[in-house]
Amino acid sequence: MSLLGIDLGGTKLAAALFSEEGKILLREKYSLEQRKGCEVGKLIGETIISMMGSAEDAGDKVRSTGISVPGISNSGTGTVWAPNIPGWSDYPLLAEVKAITGKVPVTIDSDRACSVLGERWQGNARGCRNVVFIAVGTGIGAGILINDEILRGSNDIAGATGWMALSGPFESKYTGIGCFEYYASGEGIARTARELLAEEAGYSGELRHKPSDKITSYDVFSAYENGDKLSVRVIGKCIEFWGMAAANFVSLFNPEKIIFGGGIFGPARKFLPLIRKEAEKWAQPISITKVAFDVSQLGGDAGIYGAAFLALRKVDQHSELN
Amino acid sequence: MSLLGIDLGGTKLAAALFSEEGKILLREKYSLEQRKGCEVGKLIGETIISMMGSAEDAGDKVRSTGISVPGISNSGTGTVWAPNIPGWSDYPLLAEVKAITGKVPVTIDSDRACSVLGERWQGNARGCRNVVFIAVGTGIGAGILINDEILRGSNDIAGATGWMALSGPFESKYTGIGCFEYYASGEGIARTARELLAEEAGYSGELRHKPSDKITSYDVFSAYENGDKLSVRVIGKCIEFWGMAAANFVSLFNPEKIIFGGGIFGPARKFLPLIRKEAEKWAQPISITKVAFDVSQLGGDAGIYGAAFLALRKVDQHSELN
Repeated sequence: MSLLGIDLGGTKLAAALFSEEGKILLREKYSLEQRKGCEVGKLIGETIISMMGSAEDAGDKVRSTGISVPGISNSGTGTVWAPNIPGWSDYPLLAEVKAITGKVPVTIDSDRACSVLGERWQGNARGCRNVVFIAVGTGIGAGILINDEILRGSNDIAGATGWMALSGPFESKYTGIGCFEYYASGEGIARTARELLAEEAGYSGELRHKPSDKITSYDVFSAYENGDKLSVRVIGKCIEFWGMAAANFVSLFNPEKIIFGGGIFGPARKFLPLIRKEAEKWAQPISITKVAFDVSQLGGDAGIYGAAFLALRKVDQHSELN
Repeated sequence: MSLLGIDLGGTKLAAALFSEEGKILLREKYSLEQRKGCEVGKLIGETIISMMGSAEDAGDKVRSTGISVPGISNSGTGTVWAPNIPGWSDYPLLAEVKAITGKVPVTIDSDRACSVLGERWQGNARGCRNVVFIAVGTGIGAGILINDEILRGSNDIAGATGWMALSGPFESKYTGIGCFEYYASGEGIARTARELLAEEAGYSGELRHKPSDKITSYDVFSAYENGDKLSVRVIGKCIEFWGMAAANFVSLFNPEKIIFGGGIFGPARKFLPLIRKEAEKWAQPISITKVAFDVSQLGGDAGIYGAAFLALRKVDQHSELN
C-alpha cells in the first residue's frame, strides 16, 4: 500500500508515490504550460489516474491521496483559491478529484500547511508538535503546527505572515503586499535594491552592471558575497526583519522550532545565526531559550512530502474510526 | 451544584460561587496584604474551605474549582510562576489545593487564558471558537483561543504579546520589557509621557503640573481629553501600536474576534474605531473583513468568570469520560 502526494505549484505539478515510512517509490513532474481553470484540474486528474496505474503495475495500490495547493484550501467546501492559477478563485478541486479516486480518501491543504507537515514527517521538525515554518520565496507565508495540528483560523487563512507589521508608520507602498513581505521576500529583496539604486546616484557597484528592472534577489545575494555595499544594506535589513518576525512567532506561539524555508533559504541559510541573534534581542526571554532555529531539510520537496503526510494522516484517522 | 472560581491577582484574591449557567451566587474579596510564598497558598486554601462551607450552608455543593493565576501555570507539573508574588517561582499550587478539595476537581490557568475564557463563556466572545483577548494593564499579554482551546505553546508561555517587535531597529531600553509593552502598556504610556517631558523643555501643558515621576497613564488620558498636545502624541503612538499588534494577530491567527481588555480599556475603549482603522491598513485584507474588534464585557471580572469556566469544562470532560 502506498500514499500519493501531489504538489501543485504556480507553473508545475509534481506527483510521487510514497511508502508509509516516507520513502519515495516513484515521482513525476509536469509543466502547467498555459493551462488554466479546469485544464489544471484535468491535469491533476490524469496524473492521479496515471500514478494509480503505475502503483497497480507494480502490484501495489494507492491507499490515500494528499494534494498541496499554492493558495488557500477551504476545508469546509473543498474548494481552492490559488492566485497564480487563472480561474481558481473558488475551484471545486475536492469534488473533482473524489470523482476519480472513488473510495480512496483525498485531502487537500495549502502549500504552507504542507511544507510544515513535510518537515514534521521526514524533515527537520521530526518529533516536534509546535513548529512554525516560515516560507520565504516570491512572497512570504507560514505553516504553523500547534499540538501537531495545522493552525487554520476561522476562514483557513491563518499564517498570512507576509502581512506582519514590523515597522511603523504605515506606508502606502505596503498596500496589497504587506510590510514584512514588502522588504524581506525574494521580490522584496530585488525591489529594495532597485529603490536604493534609484536613490543612490553615486553608487557604482556591481548591481549597476544590469538594467535595474532585471535585478533579482539572486543578483543581490551574489553581490553581497563580493562585499557590495548596497547589497549588504539590503540583506542586513532583511536579516533584521526575519529576526523580528521569528521573535514574534517565538513570543506568541512558544514553539519548539522555527524553520526557514522557501527559495530564499537557499542562499539565505548561511544567515541563520545572525537571524537568531536578532530574534534573541526581541523575543520573550524564556521562550527564546526553548526554541531551535533551523532551515528546511526537504527544500523544494517539503510540499510533496507534506501532501503525502496529509494522505497518511487521513488513513490513520480512518483506522481509528473503524 | 455550583462552580468555584478563584482569581488571584498581584495584590488581592477574589472568589465566587457560580451556577453552571454563569450566574454569580456569592462572592468574596481578600487583600493579600504582605503575604508571600506559602502564606498566599494558605489564603487560597482557606478561601476554598470557606466557599465550600458557604455552598453547603446553602444546601449546595461545589462541583469543580478553577483558579486564575497572575503568571504562568505549568500544565505538566501543576506549579505556578507568578512574578508579583514573592516566592512563587515554581509554586506547587495544584498539589496544595488538591489536598484540600479531595475529589472535587481543580484546574489552574494563567490570568490571560482565564480572561479569554471568561469572555467566551459570559462576555463578548460568546459563541466564538477563535478569539484573541489582548490584555493591556501595567503590562501586556494575550489569551488566545484556537478552535475553542487555549494556545499554550510548548512551555505554557504562548501569548507573550508585550514582546511583540513592532519597530526596528532594536533599542536597549526594550530589554526585560519588550517593544510593544515598552510603549503601549499602562506603564508604557506614563513612561513615554515622562520621556517626552524630559525632551521637550518648551512644553508647559498640564502634565507639567505634576512631578514627572508621579505621572500615571490616567493623567495622560485625562490631559488627552483636554487636548493636551503631548498627551495626544503619546496616545496617538499607542493607537498605532495597538492597531499594528491587532493586525498581526489578524494576519497570523485569522480569528473571529479581537477583544481589548485590561485596566487601560477602561479609558482607551473609546479609541477602538481608531485602532481598527490602523489595523485595516496593515492586516491581511480578507482576514480583516472577517474579524470583529470589541472591548471586554466583563472588565475586571473576566478572570474570575474564566476561572469558573475552567471548572465547568473540567466537569464536562469528566462527564464525557464516564
